[in-house]
Amino acid sequence: MDTTTTETMTGAEALVRTAAAAGVELCFANPGTTEMPVVVALDRVPGMRAVLGLHETVVTGAADGYGRMAGKPALTLLHLGPGFANGIANLHNARRASTPIVNLIGDHASWHVAADAPLTSDIDSLARPVSGWLRHSTAPDAMAADMAEAVAASMEDGGKIATLVLPHDLQDAAADGPATPRTAAPRPGVEDARVAEAADALAPEGAVLMIGSPAMTEAGLKAAGRIAQATGCRLMCGRPVARAERGMGLPAPDPIPYLPEMALEAFAGVRSVVFAGAMDPVTFFGWPGYPSRVIGEACAKAWLAEPQEDVVGALEALVEHVNAPAYRAPAPPERPGPATGPLTAEAVCQTLAALQPDGAVIAEEAITSGWHYQRLSKSAPRFTQISITGGAIGLGPAMATGAAVACPERPVINLQADGSALYCPQALWTQAREGLDVTTVIFSNRSYRILQMEMQRAGLNELGPNAAALTALDRPAIDWPQLAAGFGVPATRAETGEDLADALARALHEPGPALIEAVIA
Amino acid sequence: MDTTTTETMTGAEALVRTAAAAGVELCFANPGTTEMPVVVALDRVPGMRAVLGLHETVVTGAADGYGRMAGKPALTLLHLGPGFANGIANLHNARRASTPIVNLIGDHASWHVAADAPLTSDIDSLARPVSGWLRHSTAPDAMAADMAEAVAASMEDGGKIATLVLPHDLQDAAADGPATPRTAAPRPGVEDARVAEAADALAPEGAVLMIGSPAMTEAGLKAAGRIAQATGCRLMCGRPVARAERGMGLPAPDPIPYLPEMALEAFAGVRSVVFAGAMDPVTFFGWPGYPSRVIGEACAKAWLAEPQEDVVGALEALVEHVNAPAYRAPAPPERPGPATGPLTAEAVCQTLAALQPDGAVIAEEAITSGWHYQRLSKSAPRFTQISITGGAIGLGPAMATGAAVACPERPVINLQADGSALYCPQALWTQAREGLDVTTVIFSNRSYRILQMEMQRAGLNELGPNAAALTALDRPAIDWPQLAAGFGVPATRAETGEDLADALARALHEPGPALIEAVIA
Repeated sequence: MDTTTTETMTGAEALVRTAAAAGVELCFANPGTTEMPVVVALDRVPGMRAVLGLHETVVTGAADGYGRMAGKPALTLLHLGPGFANGIANLHNARRASTPIVNLIGDHASWHVAADAPLTSDIDSLARPVSGWLRHSTAPDAMAADMAEAVAASMEDGGKIATLVLPHDLQDAAADGPATPRTAAPRPGVEDARVAEAADALAPEGAVLMIGSPAMTEAGLKAAGRIAQATGCRLMCGRPVARAERGMGLPAPDPIPYLPEMALEAFAGVRSVVFAGAMDPVTFFGWPGYPSRVIGEACAKAWLAEPQEDVVGALEALVEHVNAPAYRAPAPPERPGPATGPLTAEAVCQTLAALQPDGAVIAEEAITSGWHYQRLSKSAPRFTQISITGGAIGLGPAMATGAAVACPERPVINLQADGSALYCPQALWTQAREGLDVTTVIFSNRSYRILQMEMQRAGLNELGPNAAALTALDRPAIDWPQLAAGFGVPATRAETGEDLADALARALHEPGPALIEAVIA
Repeated sequence: MDTTTTETMTGAEALVRTAAAAGVELCFANPGTTEMPVVVALDRVPGMRAVLGLHETVVTGAADGYGRMAGKPALTLLHLGPGFANGIANLHNARRASTPIVNLIGDHASWHVAADAPLTSDIDSLARPVSGWLRHSTAPDAMAADMAEAVAASMEDGGKIATLVLPHDLQDAAADGPATPRTAAPRPGVEDARVAEAADALAPEGAVLMIGSPAMTEAGLKAAGRIAQATGCRLMCGRPVARAERGMGLPAPDPIPYLPEMALEAFAGVRSVVFAGAMDPVTFFGWPGYPSRVIGEACAKAWLAEPQEDVVGALEALVEHVNAPAYRAPAPPERPGPATGPLTAEAVCQTLAALQPDGAVIAEEAITSGWHYQRLSKSAPRFTQISITGGAIGLGPAMATGAAVACPERPVINLQADGSALYCPQALWTQAREGLDVTTVIFSNRSYRILQMEMQRAGLNELGPNAAALTALDRPAIDWPQLAAGFGVPATRAETGEDLADALARALHEPGPALIEAVIA
């Protein structure tokens, strides 16, 4: 750590130096006047990189994608309450993903808050619902220690969001210097008794081992696969899956369907479930006639590991306990070829699964269109999938942006619903500015298809003019190639499988971002 | 009110019928599954129109523009906590503008909240900072009465934001029927003693009458103008100005400059200020070396009327008290002609002021570029100006959209900073879909100019790479014509005064929206 400049160091610089010493390298930002001392400090600390988002939803969504792929927090830098508020929806997703993030919010000078200036608001009330850790710095010398605590806190309890509020005057005041980083507490281990209980619970016919996101690493999946092969249990994955290793040679746990009738059906006859880093699944919404909990009271439930515990370690202990033989990769289904003819959602998924390169990161936000991809991609070369976790739509393009910043050597493909993409098209500009290798594939069905589906499920087959207006994205249809070009991203429209295959090959071959509008029925 | 359908009426329909009976006609919406019963109800109630925004910031910003121009609330319809959160920044602006708005937030079914499903969050904590009135409906039959109360509350205390949270199951359950609207309490009148005190306070040399937004109607301005002419006081307007009548024949009160040194200078030598619906002005930020309050302790302050009181009535009483003669419109400065040659911010303002048609609505969000317009537009034909009030940038295009919905017979011109526009470009799509007569003029300086200015003021003339990246909007520059075309709005780029004059004439002549990128130095 460079201590030669501590004589004239500001609180902001002490804070940024502390973050850098703790291993933080990235700051996704959309700052204003009250964050300028931090902006200046970002240039004083070697190894800190600032990435601008044109809207805070890009900033926080990128921090989510980055945190999932890097396994450590990025900073966000946000402007008072309203700037922070713009980032809340994607922080909601990040909270559900247990992504480590450290938010920095510049506040008015401490002596100016009482004036109730135009931008003053109750920052704490806005921040609390998405923050696992929340603090206001109260002195220039406290800032560095607060940052050390924030970074460590973001890595604990399985990963969480730490929010630090920084009064403008304190950022600019002289400070003693950076603080020593604090090591985050590791995931707690699991006692032997729970391993034994889990083994017992997997013994009955038709038992399920339900793994959560922390187990979806290569090591976790192989351990789970060995357990399933040794015990005959079925492997499923709970929601949300923040990040999963997937593709050829890895077990592919069955996901829980979105619709309640299908979710209940998936557990029909299941008498015993062991949870490893997964939560007891609930339906996405409270649908009339269906229970909140997908797994009924009659089913036995055993908890091998909570999501914040050492899930992979617990699975490996269970491997030993059941004396499972080495993992044998199942014979994968044949890899599909690219689709031909007019595009459908399934044809888009098939074409992507057929052509995606080895080592891709798939950033997926396509609830109605992306379902097919889970099945079709099982034989694709190894990839990492990151998906929307909290239902706050408008994550995908931002998450892909952050993932590409974290993994510059990997191709990132954003499988993206059109309605959701329209919540953060600004992410395309950050991709262009940073030269990120992100290929965005828009499922262009020109509707909020999920709402039309819900309307039909509720027996409303003829929509009135207001309902039609609120669930369709036509009149006018979005011209995605022009929209993307406006943000500096080259784009094309594909109407057939052949078009899509060509466009994908081109986009994946060329450096930098590209967008493909896949027009589907 | 149609009572023939009450037998099978849902809570949602009872609620919407109550809103309609209270005079509400518009619902700006971005609904999800938990709002579908309200969506269905919008088609069951004659005279209710739903307008879709592709992002909630468009929804709430449009409701702000609509409420300012219509003088009554629109509904917003927002999806749980995350959907509401996306609208908070523009609700922050609306709160500072005292705009009446009624937010409806669909929540999970009451029995499903405890399941902590993916979209569950603390809605109250998010809603409280921007809501002057907040309630959860707790029974299907309570919904209609809650709506009656929400609409009335939104019109009281000078105008405020009412937020009503509607559990999904209750929306769909049978209800008794609509509730009787409640009449909003009128603005309280002002006692004679305060009128007399105000008259005394205006007597000294160099006194200022500072009027607020509620006085910026034709009647309020003319009363203020008569008082100024009778007493010799200077007329100023406080911040924020949510809505002001302006142009030929009306007094043009001097605004308070943004920069603290200029704001303090504006009050140098002022010994007495009378406030009429304006607040004691504070600086926008807490700048080092400057006080929060623009008007010092040495200056006497008298309060004719608080913003929520009958400000115009109080001014008219003061007219009588000082026995002011009839209003004489001052000789206006000559109306400028359109600018020629390369564009600057001033040239854009001049050209607009030269060409704007009679009766325009000017929706302004351009802090560094729009300042000139205040001066140059004094001789323009009569118009209404609505401006950003809370500093949460990204209001202009949405506010213009709502204003155009409220005033279909008037041309709306959005004077818009580029950095701010990039927070809600999606508003362009709503303008295209609804065929709104909005002409957007983008001040394209390709930077967050205000931040660069603040950096210079802080003595930082050479920006490091991170500071440069976070304050510039180049690499790549936004291609506004393509971006607008992507959203279905025809657009052109202007680089000279002549280009701009041509483009403005064409845009104002043709129906529907248009965008002009004015490239400025």
